[in-house]
Amino acid sequence: MRKVYLDNAATTPVLPEVREAMLPYLDEAFGNPSCVHEWGDVAREGMENARNQVAQLIGANTGEIIFTGSGTESNNFAIKGLALAQQAKGKHVVVSAIEHFSVLHSARTLEKWGFELSLVPVDKYGVVDPEDIRKSLRKDTVLVSVMHANGEVGTIEPIQEISQITREHNVIFHTDAIASAGTIPVNVVKLGVDALSLAGNQFYGPKGVGALWVRKGVRIMPLLDGGVQEGGRRAGTENIPAIVGLGKASELAKTNMSARIEQLTRLRDCLLTELPSKIGHVVVTGHPQNRLPGNASFCVEFIEGEAMLMLLDSQGIAVTSGSACTSMALKASHVLIAMGLSHALAQGSLLFSFGIDDAPEDVDYVLEVLPPIVDRLRQMSPLYAKFIKEGKGDK
Amino acid sequence: MRKVYLDNAATTPVLPEVREAMLPYLDEAFGNPSCVHEWGDVAREGMENARNQVAQLIGANTGEIIFTGSGTESNNFAIKGLALAQQAKGKHVVVSAIEHFSVLHSARTLEKWGFELSLVPVDKYGVVDPEDIRKSLRKDTVLVSVMHANGEVGTIEPIQEISQITREHNVIFHTDAIASAGTIPVNVVKLGVDALSLAGNQFYGPKGVGALWVRKGVRIMPLLDGGVQEGGRRAGTENIPAIVGLGKASELAKTNMSARIEQLTRLRDCLLTELPSKIGHVVVTGHPQNRLPGNASFCVEFIEGEAMLMLLDSQGIAVTSGSACTSMALKASHVLIAMGLSHALAQGSLLFSFGIDDAPEDVDYVLEVLPPIVDRLRQMSPLYAKFIKEGKGDK
Repeated sequence: MRKVYLDNAATTPVLPEVREAMLPYLDEAFGNPSCVHEWGDVAREGMENARNQVAQLIGANTGEIIFTGSGTESNNFAIKGLALAQQAKGKHVVVSAIEHFSVLHSARTLEKWGFELSLVPVDKYGVVDPEDIRKSLRKDTVLVSVMHANGEVGTIEPIQEISQITREHNVIFHTDAIASAGTIPVNVVKLGVDALSLAGNQFYGPKGVGALWVRKGVRIMPLLDGGVQEGGRRAGTENIPAIVGLGKASELAKTNMSARIEQLTRLRDCLLTELPSKIGHVVVTGHPQNRLPGNASFCVEFIEGEAMLMLLDSQGIAVTSGSACTSMALKASHVLIAMGLSHALAQGSLLFSFGIDDAPEDVDYVLEVLPPIVDRLRQMSPLYAKFIKEGKGDK
Repeated sequence: MRKVYLDNAATTPVLPEVREAMLPYLDEAFGNPSCVHEWGDVAREGMENARNQVAQLIGANTGEIIFTGSGTESNNFAIKGLALAQQAKGKHVVVSAIEHFSVLHSARTLEKWGFELSLVPVDKYGVVDPEDIRKSLRKDTVLVSVMHANGEVGTIEPIQEISQITREHNVIFHTDAIASAGTIPVNVVKLGVDALSLAGNQFYGPKGVGALWVRKGVRIMPLLDGGVQEGGRRAGTENIPAIVGLGKASELAKTNMSARIEQLTRLRDCLLTELPSKIGHVVVTGHPQNRLPGNASFCVEFIEGEAMLMLLDSQGIAVTSGSACTSMALKASHVLIAMGLSHALAQGSLLFSFGIDDAPEDVDYVLEVLPPIVDRLRQMSPLYAKFIKEGKGDK
């Protein structure tokens, strides 16, 4: 059976070059970079080279990169660490309604700690209106966090416009760039942000490693207390193999970015165009133009996403409904609900996220396999039966 | 030049079998275990197998193991998460004075959050007196944390005796077993604790992974908010290759534990016995008998540890002064100070931590190389000159 992996938003594979770069650090170069001897030196050099590669990817200074254990840790660190460090100034934070749960739930934890939280809405495409950010700002606002791109619907947010506003008001601005960094151009200077999260397993690097970029001079409280690693900002023996892998993945992403974007955009646009005509009663979610190159997201009417996933899996096709991190929760995606979709429609969400191993034949295979699955499920759907009975079937 | 790695307390190498177990998960088995498709299934199976292997190592139930990104994260999670979850009952926590900084500094962070902290002292061998724990308990005490073994001086603490006391008083008891788990027998039932931290890179597993065991029924607040991974207790895409490596390392540790203990004890005892007679003016630190099998720690009088490290490094020998996590801070070890050593003596600390790749010839090499280094440094030491001048040189 053909195997088609279209779930790169959940995690990408690790590139062979990345794996090769990591292997020596799982072997003879196993040292702890905090140590004052040859083994420590070798590990430290690998780590600092990787720090430079990550900095290059996002136009940052090398010393501003803090390595973490995941994108989720980067977001927790940013939201909690930045807010706690500024709390003498005030205890109000602003995040968008479509943030990843690692941002949203961290902000909820801040509420438990006495902070106030404002959730900024999005339009039907999932776009934050910068003017809504402006309206949400108060004298005691210490942090704004809006994601660069949403991994679930692909929408890219107007970060530059928002950063102009936060800078006018002298408020720290964090952006979760986990879905975008390494995939589309991300430059911290152009974006104008103060802190930015990224994760290795989103652009062909390994799992278990992320980074938080924090502009020099911006204070942050550690999330992980302990040793003096990462300039005293993130304790714990550094995961050198994964850090080296993240560095290599960053270098490759920078070099190959335009070619990758071209490849993924072609695959995405083909599916976005063809699928609706093949199955009918389907809504494309996310922004029509300003979206991640590999993201083709839909809501299929009258069907549960879960059922489609399982039947697609039985045909060798891997996709997601909602997001990977929420799929186990079996709830309608908060992103789709915030965009104004009904719960019923949101339950039928289907996310195809392309990666560089995917080919036009994979899109053909989806277009061949999915329509009969949808037909079959609709035959069993009480919602669809009701819809037909009410005579709307010819629409 | 001969290369001798005697810094296994900082990090162990990764066993070839562990690396082999990890590699498929850096290759075709790269899926995200939260996903409902074949790639997700494969990753999930690898993870759950590893969870079982870790549980077996410490006599726990599989469902009680929470994977983390490091030993430091496990300790932060335990101290902050357990204290915050019990804070309705009270806001007093008790830790020993020789805890790792990931415990001590987490407890200091709790102080900033309104908790009160009692530090329990140790004797000259670094042993906590269980009666001191009893005395420290109050009505509002919600958490006690005492490490199972100290990685710096090797001392093993009377955890069973302490847990009897905490159970009598119905107080949650966490132990940091990062230096002991996988090295000496650790059984959560026998120890009688409620939570226990361990880390992969302390027993021939990879960096970037740890585990926190929490007894069923004990409440803990997440440190990392976000997705519903690890039963909603630790968000973030799981680091599957490292988790699988930790599992394999746990299995191998269980199988080979007695043979390893025998090998390391022989190396350790040889150095503990021989070194003092070769260089003079040296103090063995830690408990004479109840100590980790691979730990030979000393304080060399009249010399800075840092200088010895560098000269030993130039001869191919890797050791540590103080602990790896604090070596960059260049401060006298808080562990040695708590044991009553003077700052001057503590500055001369030298930790040899043996691993399974070390051989009797490595001890011979140290005994050959170190004495002339010590002689050379003492010739340059003003403290030593003063000591000789005062006529104590013949002691």
